Amino acid sequence: MGIITVSREFGSGGRELAKKLAEKLGYKYFDKSIITAVSEEGKLSEGYIENALNKINDFTYTQRSSFNFYSTHQKYVTDILIMERKVIQELAKKGNCVIVGRGADVILKEEKTIDLFVYADMQAKINRCKENLSKEEVLTDKELDKKIKAIDKARQKFYLMLGQDNWGQKENYDFCINTTNANLDKLATGLASLFKSYLGEK
Amino acid sequence: MGIITVSREFGSGGRELAKKLAEKLGYKYFDKSIITAVSEEGKLSEGYIENALNKINDFTYTQRSSFNFYSTHQKYVTDILIMERKVIQELAKKGNCVIVGRGADVILKEEKTIDLFVYADMQAKINRCKENLSKEEVLTDKELDKKIKAIDKARQKFYLMLGQDNWGQKENYDFCINTTNANLDKLATGLASLFKSYLGEK
Repeated sequence: MGIITVSREFGSGGRELAKKLAEKLGYKYFDKSIITAVSEEGKLSEGYIENALNKINDFTYTQRSSFNFYSTHQKYVTDILIMERKVIQELAKKGNCVIVGRGADVILKEEKTIDLFVYADMQAKINRCKENLSKEEVLTDKELDKKIKAIDKARQKFYLMLGQDNWGQKENYDFCINTTNANLDKLATGLASLFKSYLGEK
Repeated sequence: MGIITVSREFGSGGRELAKKLAEKLGYKYFDKSIITAVSEEGKLSEGYIENALNKINDFTYTQRSSFNFYSTHQKYVTDILIMERKVIQELAKKGNCVIVGRGADVILKEEKTIDLFVYADMQAKINRCKENLSKEEVLTDKELDKKIKAIDKARQKFYLMLGQDNWGQKENYDFCINTTNANLDKLATGLASLFKSYLGEK
């Protein structure tokens, strides 16, 4: 029974890699879909949760006063964290899945998960972001650099909320994977081979 | 043509993993044997080079004055670095090899190498060191902890001599591999599968 968690720097292609890896392993893949599951679990509308998550991101992005934020939005945040924890634990029980983000590696610390961290050089991340921008969006490299750093900062802060202060540090993960020069499809094929050997012996 | 460089924390099993990986890929494996090659290349005796390398390690271990060391041993160090660079570049030209340590990843920066960094939790490294100690050697966990840190410090300093100040930082490597809970043989099998897919597309 394999559970693979994937944490990643924004723009590293970590989510795409995780999705391909799940396909190649025949595993279930969870990322935003967790939010839907959380919503069902918590009997709250998806809109409510999306809204709350956006508020977390806005908060961390703009670095507003944490006192203000927490006093206003504490209920949102607490609700989400409790529900997400429950849902991620339920998903993990069923096994054979790849879970992207949402601190799944922290939440499942007691399980025998394989924890990946996906990263890349800044220029590679900027280039990848550009490929994924719609034609209407025009951002300079400098703006993208700023955006990437802000989103990763938000991810670090999310980890802090889970009581973990070392997001992205290799010691937290089983494998760290640099996608700077990688072909994600071939890399996913290779990783699927690796994990087929590796699973069950950790 | 695959060239895999392996850097590693002392006690992580990185060298053993590298050796197994080379076997499974049918690649040549180089570590201390490089010294012999260096010696032949430089027309200097192996003893001379071993002696010089030990002096480097003593130096970094005991943190003696760098001024004194360099003034006395500069010729040793310069000779070795120049020769090692040449030899490693020669080995790389022939391809299909795994090279452990000696800053091969830095020396071969312009080549399409796959650079690995192997690490583990301190307790796992201490346990591994204990397994490898001879019966005559009795070291406490605390002594091993100190020894491991000192050797890794020496490796960092060796990198500094090559002009690189970020030994062990994930950004320098393609894959970082945590051996804390790993079965090295199965891990090597898995990595061999991974690199068979991955090679040639970087």
